[in-house]
Amino acid sequence: MNATTRSAAVAALEGIVGTRHVLTDPPLFAGALVEPRGLYRGKALAFVRPGTTQEVAAVAAFCNDARIGIVPQGGNTGLVGGQTPDLSGDQIILSTQRLKAIREVDPHADVMICEAGVTLAEAQAAALSADRLFPLSLAAEGTCTIGGNVSTNAGGVTVIAYGNTRDLVTGIEAVLADGRVVHGLSKLRKDNTGYDVKSLFVGSEGTLGVVTAVSLRLFPNPRARATAFVGVESPEKALALLGIARERLGGAVTSFELISRFAYDITVAHGLARAPLAGDHPWYVLIEASSQVADGFEDAFGGALEAALHEGVVADAAIAASLDQRHAFWRLRESIPEAQVREGGSIKHDVSVAVGDVPAFLNAATRAAEAFEPGARVCAFGHLGDGNIHFNVSQPVGADKARFLARWDAMNEVVHGIVARLGGSFSAEHGVGRLKRDLLARTKDPASLAVMRQIKATLDPNGVMNPGKVL
Amino acid sequence: MNATTRSAAVAALEGIVGTRHVLTDPPLFAGALVEPRGLYRGKALAFVRPGTTQEVAAVAAFCNDARIGIVPQGGNTGLVGGQTPDLSGDQIILSTQRLKAIREVDPHADVMICEAGVTLAEAQAAALSADRLFPLSLAAEGTCTIGGNVSTNAGGVTVIAYGNTRDLVTGIEAVLADGRVVHGLSKLRKDNTGYDVKSLFVGSEGTLGVVTAVSLRLFPNPRARATAFVGVESPEKALALLGIARERLGGAVTSFELISRFAYDITVAHGLARAPLAGDHPWYVLIEASSQVADGFEDAFGGALEAALHEGVVADAAIAASLDQRHAFWRLRESIPEAQVREGGSIKHDVSVAVGDVPAFLNAATRAAEAFEPGARVCAFGHLGDGNIHFNVSQPVGADKARFLARWDAMNEVVHGIVARLGGSFSAEHGVGRLKRDLLARTKDPASLAVMRQIKATLDPNGVMNPGKVL
Repeated sequence: MNATTRSAAVAALEGIVGTRHVLTDPPLFAGALVEPRGLYRGKALAFVRPGTTQEVAAVAAFCNDARIGIVPQGGNTGLVGGQTPDLSGDQIILSTQRLKAIREVDPHADVMICEAGVTLAEAQAAALSADRLFPLSLAAEGTCTIGGNVSTNAGGVTVIAYGNTRDLVTGIEAVLADGRVVHGLSKLRKDNTGYDVKSLFVGSEGTLGVVTAVSLRLFPNPRARATAFVGVESPEKALALLGIARERLGGAVTSFELISRFAYDITVAHGLARAPLAGDHPWYVLIEASSQVADGFEDAFGGALEAALHEGVVADAAIAASLDQRHAFWRLRESIPEAQVREGGSIKHDVSVAVGDVPAFLNAATRAAEAFEPGARVCAFGHLGDGNIHFNVSQPVGADKARFLARWDAMNEVVHGIVARLGGSFSAEHGVGRLKRDLLARTKDPASLAVMRQIKATLDPNGVMNPGKVL
Repeated sequence: MNATTRSAAVAALEGIVGTRHVLTDPPLFAGALVEPRGLYRGKALAFVRPGTTQEVAAVAAFCNDARIGIVPQGGNTGLVGGQTPDLSGDQIILSTQRLKAIREVDPHADVMICEAGVTLAEAQAAALSADRLFPLSLAAEGTCTIGGNVSTNAGGVTVIAYGNTRDLVTGIEAVLADGRVVHGLSKLRKDNTGYDVKSLFVGSEGTLGVVTAVSLRLFPNPRARATAFVGVESPEKALALLGIARERLGGAVTSFELISRFAYDITVAHGLARAPLAGDHPWYVLIEASSQVADGFEDAFGGALEAALHEGVVADAAIAASLDQRHAFWRLRESIPEAQVREGGSIKHDVSVAVGDVPAFLNAATRAAEAFEPGARVCAFGHLGDGNIHFNVSQPVGADKARFLARWDAMNEVVHGIVARLGGSFSAEHGVGRLKRDLLARTKDPASLAVMRQIKATLDPNGVMNPGKVL
């Protein structure tokens, strides 16, 4: 794009959203040009902040006509490069940061309507202020936005009970590439009038349109909650504990997080969390359950753990006796990524398999990773209840970080091969973005991939919506 | 289509699925040519029964090349004409009745894989045999098939707890118009590798492809269940009871069915069910809850009803003391349609609004329907917990049935107008089919409709998949 075209484009964008909301000087939006882990860096023609859905629509229509790529960006916490522009400097970042309205919280319908730029924490708080629960919860919740959560179909720590983001969306408002607006902010629990357009936008990572607002399901705010930290001998025992918990507590099990001893040890060693259990165990589980029925709930929760102890499924268990202790348990779980940073380079995999296959995956992948890079330390943890494991591999002690990280793709190949043999997914919750685009093209069922490409081509024929991502 | 073309087509189809599985003599498949309520009758070139996914693919590829319309049909229980061919006699019925395998029941992954022709009751039984619950439940479950349930995104009586069929599907195998097969029978709870192709097929009523198999979520088989029949003064009170039940029992509330006095009275009067309560009430609620935690569950359930009685929300309540009594309660609910048949003509609406708007809808629609047709008797019942009401209107006593039914469309217009003002849906769970196709075209958000049409055009460019349905 030459200088004349660039300034004409900037002027046109300023005409739509106002001069103050079109930033062109890179230092003013430097943070938006880099992915949080530094894996991707981009340039941009402008950082554009529309304030209304109509402005988003006008920006899209202009960019579509001018063939300017639009990279939607919320909290910039994505882990696959989906929110980062390329290096051409010809794309714009369309920031949702001014789309901040919580348009409605309706506790009768158990629905709230949030604009894309509302942070997840703000959405949770709005629900709570109406004595309702919006259950989506993940580490980045203070920064990540609802628009990003929806665009990436975010997962997190409560999927076992409440599902992924897609399961929480009852309706959507989205701007198509050509500026048409899909008005689908339904509060309905049941609506069989045609194809499921909403689910198509959820998880499409901005490649089909810009999500500007969504209606989200709310739930009763649980009256009782119980949390335990448990030591187990193996992933197989952890799975058996999950079976006992599901059998005895059913849908009340809201989180079931598996933590390897290595992940536990480094987190404690770096002083990021207290050790919840006195002894050492090969694996740990953080289990949480919640219920509307407070009477007898603690007994039921304790009873499930006692049964597991009695059957030799569990080696040791601590039930949180206070809110402080609960937070301490969660702090350990949530500090693992930071502990990993302190241990040097880490090669990451966000994978899922059928829940029953998690032990087989962990055994095979650990052997393979250790054989591939002798001395490498597997740091596995994640959402066993959903079959989703963050299978991260820390560099050998004292090894050269850059040299270790240079083997990222090759290590991925080893681990993803095992995932594929088990019928699993190489992106359980983080999405495809730019990081896994080629992997998707290489490994996805051909007819499914063809359907995706046909949909992309018909909805965004000029390819302006988040170009180079997903497909 | 001339006689030569017809016999060539039949010969080609026989070559694919075998001579015995291509019926061309209408008396042999007369039942498949008429919709269950007799609203639609069609003709067909042939009734084709492929036995494998590969045969379905070959049939589709042939029909696509020959421009022969394919009408997929499962149990033929649909209520909107989606499964009935047109009168040209040039379309084929593609029956799923030989796709009967339950390929796998995996209690560790909590997933089962069923082919399209498995009946819902068979699927439920297969889950139960592994001590799991497949929660989808609806009146036609003995006859309707999983393929039909998925294609229409069936609802039923447990949506409040477990969601619609779409929420229960983790993966799909489907044949596209040109014979390509989407292999997506995932057992994964989390998989963010691209667009949600599966959800697109769920609810597309056979217009995008033929669903040949699906993977379905299973749940723990509840250990405790409680059912009550309740008399209330008004829909507002029923809604207040729902609030109390959700607050005290949360996700344990698995059904919440509203029944008007008229629906209750005619069902008892025709001897189809016993009266669960001694006195008369303007409205009734059938509420059911279930839980893994048996201890204290009956107390919690009884406590919720007691609180509602105490607060004046409920006028009377009977808790089922035996399995027999539970079945008797459900028999009343499920016999309403039959009772309506015995009361003469009935004009039906399958609508939904936000849960909190149900009373406003019922009040306005009842007034409007009675004003539109003096003497008409509103027979409202349905799934209050999902905001889904079957707002049926029985003819005035002694009126001419045909003359009353001739006003079907006009009555629909009145009722759907109220639904539209409340932001509701004119097809909550039955789908669009042929019955509501024009209504969809007239009332759906234009951009959403355009997206649907673009998807249809790109996936089925020759328009052979269930022509004339939905769009």
